[in-house]
Amino acid sequence: MPIISILTDFGLRDGYVGVMKGVIWKICPDAQIADITHNIPPQNIRQGAIALLRTTRYFPKGTIHVAVVDPGVGTHRKPMAAEVDGHFYVGPDNGLFSLVFSEAEERGVGCRFYTLDKPEYWLPEVSRVFHGRDIFAPAAAHLASGVPLEKMGTPFTDPTRLSNPEPRRQSNGWLGEVLTIDNFGNIATNIRSKHLQGNEKCTIKIAGQTITGLIQTFEDRPDGELAAMIGTDNDLIVAVVKGNAAEKYNIKPGDLVEVQTATGDQP
Amino acid sequence: MPIISILTDFGLRDGYVGVMKGVIWKICPDAQIADITHNIPPQNIRQGAIALLRTTRYFPKGTIHVAVVDPGVGTHRKPMAAEVDGHFYVGPDNGLFSLVFSEAEERGVGCRFYTLDKPEYWLPEVSRVFHGRDIFAPAAAHLASGVPLEKMGTPFTDPTRLSNPEPRRQSNGWLGEVLTIDNFGNIATNIRSKHLQGNEKCTIKIAGQTITGLIQTFEDRPDGELAAMIGTDNDLIVAVVKGNAAEKYNIKPGDLVEVQTATGDQP
Amino acid sequence: MPIISILTDFGLRDGYVGVMKGVIWKICPDAQIADITHNIPPQNIRQGAIALLRTTRYFPKGTIHVAVVDPGVGTHRKPMAAEVDGHFYVGPDNGLFSLVFSEAEERGVGCRFYTLDKPEYWLPEVSRVFHGRDIFAPAAAHLASGVPLEKMGTPFTDPTRLSNPEPRRQSNGWLGEVLTIDNFGNIATNIRSKHLQGNEKCTIKIAGQTITGLIQTFEDRPDGELAAMIGTDNDLIVAVVKGNAAEKYNIKPGDLVEVQTATGDQP
Repeated sequence: MPIISILTDFGLRDGYVGVMKGVIWKICPDAQIADITHNIPPQNIRQGAIALLRTTRYFPKGTIHVAVVDPGVGTHRKPMAAEVDGHFYVGPDNGLFSLVFSEAEERGVGCRFYTLDKPEYWLPEVSRVFHGRDIFAPAAAHLASGVPLEKMGTPFTDPTRLSNPEPRRQSNGWLGEVLTIDNFGNIATNIRSKHLQGNEKCTIKIAGQTITGLIQTFEDRPDGELAAMIGTDNDLIVAVVKGNAAEKYNIKPGDLVEVQTATGDQP
Repeated sequence: MPIISILTDFGLRDGYVGVMKGVIWKICPDAQIADITHNIPPQNIRQGAIALLRTTRYFPKGTIHVAVVDPGVGTHRKPMAAEVDGHFYVGPDNGLFSLVFSEAEERGVGCRFYTLDKPEYWLPEVSRVFHGRDIFAPAAAHLASGVPLEKMGTPFTDPTRLSNPEPRRQSNGWLGEVLTIDNFGNIATNIRSKHLQGNEKCTIKIAGQTITGLIQTFEDRPDGELAAMIGTDNDLIVAVVKGNAAEKYNIKPGDLVEVQTATGDQP
Repeated sequence: MPIISILTDFGLRDGYVGVMKGVIWKICPDAQIADITHNIPPQNIRQGAIALLRTTRYFPKGTIHVAVVDPGVGTHRKPMAAEVDGHFYVGPDNGLFSLVFSEAEERGVGCRFYTLDKPEYWLPEVSRVFHGRDIFAPAAAHLASGVPLEKMGTPFTDPTRLSNPEPRRQSNGWLGEVLTIDNFGNIATNIRSKHLQGNEKCTIKIAGQTITGLIQTFEDRPDGELAAMIGTDNDLIVAVVKGNAAEKYNIKPGDLVEVQTATGDQP
């Protein structure tokens, strides 16, 4: 059965996501549909892009990922679809997929981009405010039903890109920032294991706190203590053991995080 | 595969909805199940009824819509099912489906109503507090398995109706009210495009603010500005461009909204 | 189609649950997946255990229940799976499933426990922080695909158990506690119908309030009144008719509840 994932900033209150599923099943009744999240902060394209980068690669090849974080709905921004390494992406061309594209290109994987400009694959009536329902859900369902991407749009080459905040090199380490905070209050940063090069004796400074060294598992420190480790996406994460680091230290996306390597100048 | 949608006021914390899915799959293992929303404000039948009206028609014909907003569970209110234009509705007879029924009847579509009074299609034990699990989920699953509606209940003709708040005609326009507020803080009113008759130069008054004219898309106004447009359901909606109108102006369901037509007396 | 349920404390914001579904479908593309809840309070094993006890038995036999409330992830706690009365349970061995095991054993149903120690049924790379994705979702998917439990792990006999808070016998009744509070603010206690032995004339004391007698349905008392009844799990529940008891009286899990039987010494 074809698999479709959905990620939006719609929340779960209004039934908008349910409507998209209804539209999908009207066109492709046997699609399996999984929600990735619908709690992207409203209109926050960057948080949506990070979530897509982290999650979609765990789905099987052939999955169609519909994502809608779309502050420009009804304006000049293009509806688009892309094929990346056997995965399909459908949504607005506003940078939402661009971290996925960049990561694939870094790995040498090519991406194909299409403007969705064939109304025969949309709902008959297209509103100015809900393209998730009127364009993206139907396009995803047609893809799931076997319509080739080539028939549904026109190739283009320059999708909108988000600038990816990279950590800055400092004399004795790196200056990075907080990317995301999860349900547990764990903090993910844009400093990655490649920046640390196995240097587990580094010192981390965040929110006025200093953390010495990286731990391997949460039981390496007592409950309630702030600790740092390499997370599941090879990024530096900061957490309070059995607690909520973001709440305890009032840390937010965009806050600075500094890593000093043990030897001073050999990060 | 048969499709079942579920809408409740159960929230997502307690596993009540998961239990309903378990019950459904015990009876009809291949049913596809979509959540519409479970965040209807507790016991708010009207908000549930509006959500059903707006969402269920996007599902394919044959879909079975189970809805449970049921402050009178365990009392004299009837469990019911209905067939409307090829869609099935299962839940309490308390007005929850009545906006769907009225809309269908306005279009000249007949509705068939049944009291669910055949315990052989319920769980063996029926509690006094959770008919979603004990009566409605099993009934929906039996329908999905092919049991005809006629076998599961007794026809009746007078389901409970909600009075629909209609806008009131004024000398130079209409006085309506706020129906719902969505995840983005966008405000939907009971004033519809038919009331405005294409008059896009109208003036809208809400929460002490005055909006002049309707916009076509959100890019017609600067970010942060309050604007009005015809929404996806042909209703007048009020929104802050890339912002949250309900929060900014403290607007709630039931608040008044006034539309004055440009010519004064030709709404 | 095989059925998998998922219960976690991951919340719905971060896409962690979506990732688990992707991993499952990569291994077993036709699995039906239902969320039970992802809003267990972070790292609250007891609340997770109670939710599993109340919900999983409503699923069909053969269902695979994956549950992840896992403060000890990456430490010495074992990954485990169990078979109980035709249901399968997959997750950490930290007590999360122990109320299910105890309830089955009380009914004379045997349970089989396995340490999941065969890495060929995990993802190729296992992180220290997300075994839901790396071990439990793949194990569940392999089970769903027909791999026998015996092949996936090594039998063991002593899973971690939660001590179940039982009400204490008093001269004229029972002293129990609040177990859970649901989305409606209804309060479930650890006093069960067996403790009351049909004595519906008892007096209940909670949060400084006194309730006289049990009601049968919510319409037996006026709106807004605090009332007690035997709930859907044969437990004593306390609710405000068409209101929110927990908010109104600031009641929390662990709060005491006292039941005095009418005759004083014959509970």
